[in-house]
Amino acid sequence: MLESVHETAKQPLAAAVAARGTPGAGMLLQLLRDGLPRTRAQLATETGLARSTITQRVDALLNSNLIGPASKAASTGGRPPTQFTFNPSARVVLAADIGATHTRLAVTDLAGTTLAEARTKLDVTTGPEKVLDWVATSGLRLLEESGRLPQLLGVGIGLPGPVEHSTGRPVNPPIMPGWDGYDVQGYLRDVFGVAVLVDNDVNIMALGEHFSHWSNSPHMMLVKVATGIGSGLISDGRLHRGAQGAAGDMGHVQVPRGANVPCHCGNEGCLEAVASGAAIAAQLSERGIDASSSRDVAALAKAGSLQALQLLRQAGRDIGDVLAAAVSLFNPSLIVVGGSLSLAGEQLVAGIREVVYRRSLPLATQHLRIVESHTGDRAGIIGAAVMVIDHALSPAQVDSLI
Amino acid sequence: MLESVHETAKQPLAAAVAARGTPGAGMLLQLLRDGLPRTRAQLATETGLARSTITQRVDALLNSNLIGPASKAASTGGRPPTQFTFNPSARVVLAADIGATHTRLAVTDLAGTTLAEARTKLDVTTGPEKVLDWVATSGLRLLEESGRLPQLLGVGIGLPGPVEHSTGRPVNPPIMPGWDGYDVQGYLRDVFGVAVLVDNDVNIMALGEHFSHWSNSPHMMLVKVATGIGSGLISDGRLHRGAQGAAGDMGHVQVPRGANVPCHCGNEGCLEAVASGAAIAAQLSERGIDASSSRDVAALAKAGSLQALQLLRQAGRDIGDVLAAAVSLFNPSLIVVGGSLSLAGEQLVAGIREVVYRRSLPLATQHLRIVESHTGDRAGIIGAAVMVIDHALSPAQVDSLI
Repeated sequence: MLESVHETAKQPLAAAVAARGTPGAGMLLQLLRDGLPRTRAQLATETGLARSTITQRVDALLNSNLIGPASKAASTGGRPPTQFTFNPSARVVLAADIGATHTRLAVTDLAGTTLAEARTKLDVTTGPEKVLDWVATSGLRLLEESGRLPQLLGVGIGLPGPVEHSTGRPVNPPIMPGWDGYDVQGYLRDVFGVAVLVDNDVNIMALGEHFSHWSNSPHMMLVKVATGIGSGLISDGRLHRGAQGAAGDMGHVQVPRGANVPCHCGNEGCLEAVASGAAIAAQLSERGIDASSSRDVAALAKAGSLQALQLLRQAGRDIGDVLAAAVSLFNPSLIVVGGSLSLAGEQLVAGIREVVYRRSLPLATQHLRIVESHTGDRAGIIGAAVMVIDHALSPAQVDSLI
Repeated sequence: MLESVHETAKQPLAAAVAARGTPGAGMLLQLLRDGLPRTRAQLATETGLARSTITQRVDALLNSNLIGPASKAASTGGRPPTQFTFNPSARVVLAADIGATHTRLAVTDLAGTTLAEARTKLDVTTGPEKVLDWVATSGLRLLEESGRLPQLLGVGIGLPGPVEHSTGRPVNPPIMPGWDGYDVQGYLRDVFGVAVLVDNDVNIMALGEHFSHWSNSPHMMLVKVATGIGSGLISDGRLHRGAQGAAGDMGHVQVPRGANVPCHCGNEGCLEAVASGAAIAAQLSERGIDASSSRDVAALAKAGSLQALQLLRQAGRDIGDVLAAAVSLFNPSLIVVGGSLSLAGEQLVAGIREVVYRRSLPLATQHLRIVESHTGDRAGIIGAAVMVIDHALSPAQVDSLI
């Protein structure tokens, strides 16, 4: 009976144990990923692994090039013992951030540093074959031009709709006709012959923003406000995907101002129906102002349109209504606001702050910061790479691959 | 740069490594906690630890009595190798569930099985010294009577208000005058001389319910509906406490029906102001029906009072408004409804289901179950014990203690 509640706590170990390739190699690599060089003796002391095991595992990691010799350790005489460090340039990752109208591609090393990049205007509504074919063709070209194709470790993809993370298949994605249930993993695995991980665009943004700037905030929420509205939750430093990978969906939470406003999901009163870029553009059009997208709204706000600024402020308050509930339920120390509308000045975030600090309990808001994205439109592509690196370098994966 | 995002994934290892007492002992114990017996050779194969290390660690664990010899392994001849298994009766835990008007105490073994119990009527408003003095006196008596005082591993306490888990101190608890900032850990550590862990009553209920019945549901939400309303979130099998330990506070989320209704927190429109046991009792009193507590409400509902049943149904709908948002944000596969009002028949849960299944997106509700607590009023005391067992038997703790 006792073991059941500890199931998850035990998983890193159980997973490491299940992977019988080279048990212990992943554990050594995980240690060395902090960047500090260590000798074989130090590795033995820190892990409790046998010296003979250490020697075998270090050799396997050296052969795979995932670690390399570092500078020599200080010694009182004789030949100093060799130190080893993690080698982030040993492998590369292909990351793709597929948006509604633009797709971005990058090759990164194992530290998430971009080595090569490409982007294109490509409407996701043209369907999976066309979009994934561009990812495959351009990805192969980027990898070949940089001479890194043989070192490809995995492919990470973000899509602008709900994704079942375990299978990598989109689930009823509202703005992606033709993609429902499509085998994105299979398509790209056939091309690249490596592991392919898929998640929604907001989850990878949360991973990228957390990795790049907020790794000291274990409980974080990333809110994307653009054509639609969504969020990604970081719990204890890890992405919380929930039971179906649907966690963070805040666009269809009901808000007071939404009463009787129909939403494209079939319900009424959803946040997205009153506060998304699409909703604000429609509200501006109704007032005779030419706007058809969230980018138009952002442009109008930057140009000083009073109506656009007022609508952004009100959208911020509506989003704040949902975030106030999220703060009470989830108690993050940080909310990062990203997406095209967050780039349109202070009004959106000001509206969010106004409501969250008024509505949430003092204990939950006393140390809460609400900030604009620091990564801007690069959060997604970084996050797609981080998703793959994190998976591929986990102890179980390393043990089974080496 | 790379290591930052992996901070948490690395923690079990880093923690195990930081504890220099007997590295590897905790890892062996963690393996053996699944109840399966293993030989020294099997332990070496599964962990990659050196045979000499295995021998030392197994001896240390045998000396501590945390493991013991099991039945003999099958062998083709000669003396069969000894197998070892986890010994849950090696130590005991003292668990206390302190409620608004009742306090419950239990001594359990390391499998969470209750060995001895006590309970008393005790108003938490009498202040920390009086309540904790009862816990100390009765706890010592239970432990002495059962002859297990020398094996006490730790003390776990649940309190009916917000607690900063890291320090064990209550933070502005609304119904606990005199407790704000009180050093609960220090008081009980002085008495028992062991580790003391403190959390709020709803978090320990979530731990207890998850441990007892739902360990296969990694994403779960426990909602307690009694005098107040709160919840505990299980994310990936672990309690999500949030940045200040305030996660799961749903009583002060705004609901539509709450407009202009003042709440004791100082805001208006909170869920607790319209749907808690206290609020329903007040609504019944206004209608000339004698009710002053959530237990009165439950009693009236069980006796068939139409007004009480209608108010419970409506309270369920109000709670459903907040849970619909929680389901979208958190995507659990299971919501467990507990607390005294959940014991008053089907109306409360029916109201919750009605709104959640109508309001949440299909992807989040297709496999969502909403059920009544299976543990009833024992969830808290089991969870208080599990909190301590889980902490004390984690690899880092075991390594440093043995």
